[in-house]
Amino acid sequence: MQQVNLGMIGGGTVGSGVFHAWKKNGALMAARLGVAIKFRKIAVKAFDEPRPYPISRELMTTDWQEVVNDPAIHLVIELVGGCGIAKTMVLAALAQGKTVVTANKALLSAHGPELFAAAAKSGANLYYEASVCGGIPIIKSLREGFVANQFPAIYGIVNGTCNYILSRMKHEGADFAAVLADAQKQGYAETPPDLDIDGHDAQHKTGILASLAHGFWVDHHEIHTEGIRDVSKLDMEFAAKLGCTIKLLGIVKQVSSGHSPQIQVSVYPALIPSEHVLASVNQVFNAVFVRGDVVGDTLFYGGGAGKDATASAVLSDVADAALDLKNGIKRRVPPFVACAKKGKVVSLDHVASQYYIRFSVVDKPGVLAKIAAIFAAAKIGIASVIQPEGHEGESVPLIFMSHEAPNAAMRKALAKIAKLPAVKARPVMFRVESLQ
Amino acid sequence: MQQVNLGMIGGGTVGSGVFHAWKKNGALMAARLGVAIKFRKIAVKAFDEPRPYPISRELMTTDWQEVVNDPAIHLVIELVGGCGIAKTMVLAALAQGKTVVTANKALLSAHGPELFAAAAKSGANLYYEASVCGGIPIIKSLREGFVANQFPAIYGIVNGTCNYILSRMKHEGADFAAVLADAQKQGYAETPPDLDIDGHDAQHKTGILASLAHGFWVDHHEIHTEGIRDVSKLDMEFAAKLGCTIKLLGIVKQVSSGHSPQIQVSVYPALIPSEHVLASVNQVFNAVFVRGDVVGDTLFYGGGAGKDATASAVLSDVADAALDLKNGIKRRVPPFVACAKKGKVVSLDHVASQYYIRFSVVDKPGVLAKIAAIFAAAKIGIASVIQPEGHEGESVPLIFMSHEAPNAAMRKALAKIAKLPAVKARPVMFRVESLQ
Repeated sequence: MQQVNLGMIGGGTVGSGVFHAWKKNGALMAARLGVAIKFRKIAVKAFDEPRPYPISRELMTTDWQEVVNDPAIHLVIELVGGCGIAKTMVLAALAQGKTVVTANKALLSAHGPELFAAAAKSGANLYYEASVCGGIPIIKSLREGFVANQFPAIYGIVNGTCNYILSRMKHEGADFAAVLADAQKQGYAETPPDLDIDGHDAQHKTGILASLAHGFWVDHHEIHTEGIRDVSKLDMEFAAKLGCTIKLLGIVKQVSSGHSPQIQVSVYPALIPSEHVLASVNQVFNAVFVRGDVVGDTLFYGGGAGKDATASAVLSDVADAALDLKNGIKRRVPPFVACAKKGKVVSLDHVASQYYIRFSVVDKPGVLAKIAAIFAAAKIGIASVIQPEGHEGESVPLIFMSHEAPNAAMRKALAKIAKLPAVKARPVMFRVESLQ
Repeated sequence: MQQVNLGMIGGGTVGSGVFHAWKKNGALMAARLGVAIKFRKIAVKAFDEPRPYPISRELMTTDWQEVVNDPAIHLVIELVGGCGIAKTMVLAALAQGKTVVTANKALLSAHGPELFAAAAKSGANLYYEASVCGGIPIIKSLREGFVANQFPAIYGIVNGTCNYILSRMKHEGADFAAVLADAQKQGYAETPPDLDIDGHDAQHKTGILASLAHGFWVDHHEIHTEGIRDVSKLDMEFAAKLGCTIKLLGIVKQVSSGHSPQIQVSVYPALIPSEHVLASVNQVFNAVFVRGDVVGDTLFYGGGAGKDATASAVLSDVADAALDLKNGIKRRVPPFVACAKKGKVVSLDHVASQYYIRFSVVDKPGVLAKIAAIFAAAKIGIASVIQPEGHEGESVPLIFMSHEAPNAAMRKALAKIAKLPAVKARPVMFRVESLQ
């Protein structure tokens, strides 16, 4: 049986998870694939750094260049993360003609095209299934399973931390700050939590999905991104009364197709119908709802991160690379095919959405009329208004649900409304995604 | 650009769907894959048979041998269905060394190993993504995305007709017979409906999933199969009160692992927790819940059948085959790898389940005690008993929920209980799958 030799850079949580999974199922993989897969060297920060699973001492080195430069290593797994030294490592491995498997969404998001060019130049391949929704084979499915489809819409719950917080807020009627603090204590959220809860992590992943689905590399600066800090217990309750659940979504919608496709790419918390299968994705689980023009509506659900789910994805990439090496080919499915070079991300200002808006207003007659007049002048149709009972004090909530209107129009109308003396706080606005 | 020439046998609903999807997205596929895909010949029953999408007249022939024998055709798509002439066609194409793409679950289920051997002999490949859950890339995911996993459990909603009927029964509080009749009128169920509602179609698909997951070909005769005829409106109601939903499941559970893995492979209607994401899969949608020992819990959801979802799957297989032909290889991922030759399907008698049992009994003191005594003698633990109020007449319902017990013990106990004079009808039993 032929043998593929692996090198790995990163021997912490995820790295030891990959090594553990390979120890458990490596022989099974070889039987399934007809090619043996062996670890040859693993570069770690320190031999004794804390890790959930042990790594064989004789494989370890603290010098990553030993991994990249070992001529017997065919394939390098990069699990260092971030855009600093990890970029140097990946480029060094690619320059040697070694295929690279990475879970590094930040690196791909910031430097995708540069990495793909480096891989093409040396004839190596670059795999990144683990970079988006760890355990879910969404990259492979978009690229291979749905290769005969265009993608009118993709909605992803791609950040486990945010989904954990929003799920608990909904089910416990708890406040954002309290749940975040507890999530940090339990290890479900980082300190500081910004990368997750401000939507940056979701932005990286959504950009990768958008790029693969639409055939041009999406610059992450063009992705309108809002996090979940503004979601309150109150909004969760009102959303529930409206039959909706609030989820942080990565959204990729086809605005126009053809040779110069235009797409919306955004990350924001949105109200979705509670009876939709996407609304039942709770806790740290991830899910991606993919609408294909041929296949129809589909959903992929699974663990989005963590050492084991990520290990499963990393090893699936290793398997694909191993099959290619076995067959003497290297780029059967290249890392990225730019087949729509004229594709464009549309500014959210030009995209029409439906909206949920919550105002805090003084409880006096005439306030609703004034707000409604500003919406009318902006040509924003109102679907319903709720003035919930049982709220007392200086200000009371007033909720509007709108029809579809351009985001620019809504932004301007809200700025005007915010200046009304009767409006006591910054209006809270979330978009509504019917998923229809 | 290289070109792969397709021949297709079958130009009805699904065949015209494949042709239509190719006309729409064939150029996009070529751009994504770097290889052109062209239809060269399509064998149809009759030029003018009714079909939802048109097929170009100049491609059509009524002689399937023209497709198989055309030396310019690299790949044959078989969409005839069934185990008769379709088998001859597939074997003829494979014998010519042509790769075959099929959606024919019945043929695979009955003759898988014979087809795989024929493919191996001529060095051709055989693809069948469309045979299980049309639009869901579950074959590719099990084989490639989850290649680093063992599979402790797989639960599939794999028959759209049954799921449609059960969903409507639940949501409308309607009876089986009425919903079936309406489903037939609307084209969601065939006449006669036996292949679907007696579980045979689910059996074919479940056997294919079990075989791929566990590395030995499962003989469909060994799959314990029950359909949904016994599910009544009453059971739906009681299940709901117990927090459960009744779904027809294809079940594959690892009983023991290693070189001689033992697995349970069954098809039966089961109670599952209503809050589980699998319970929210409604209408004709399919879903497969896959538990991997590395990846954890995942779920795939999508359209299970129909011309378009099936076309998406057929064309994904065509794309895989085209990439291999482009690279000069033919069996990069062979149709089946028998890596666990000593695998065995365990008789359901030896499998332990939890049970929901509904008796129709005369409303007299002492009946419950008699039934409980028989369960006790069979060492079947009772988790709860419900005697619902508001039922009058000759007989009243009495519901037991049991702890885990072997199926043989339950079968024998029920046979004894059925003979009690106070028990007025055949006991109704469904298994409970906690999905934990």
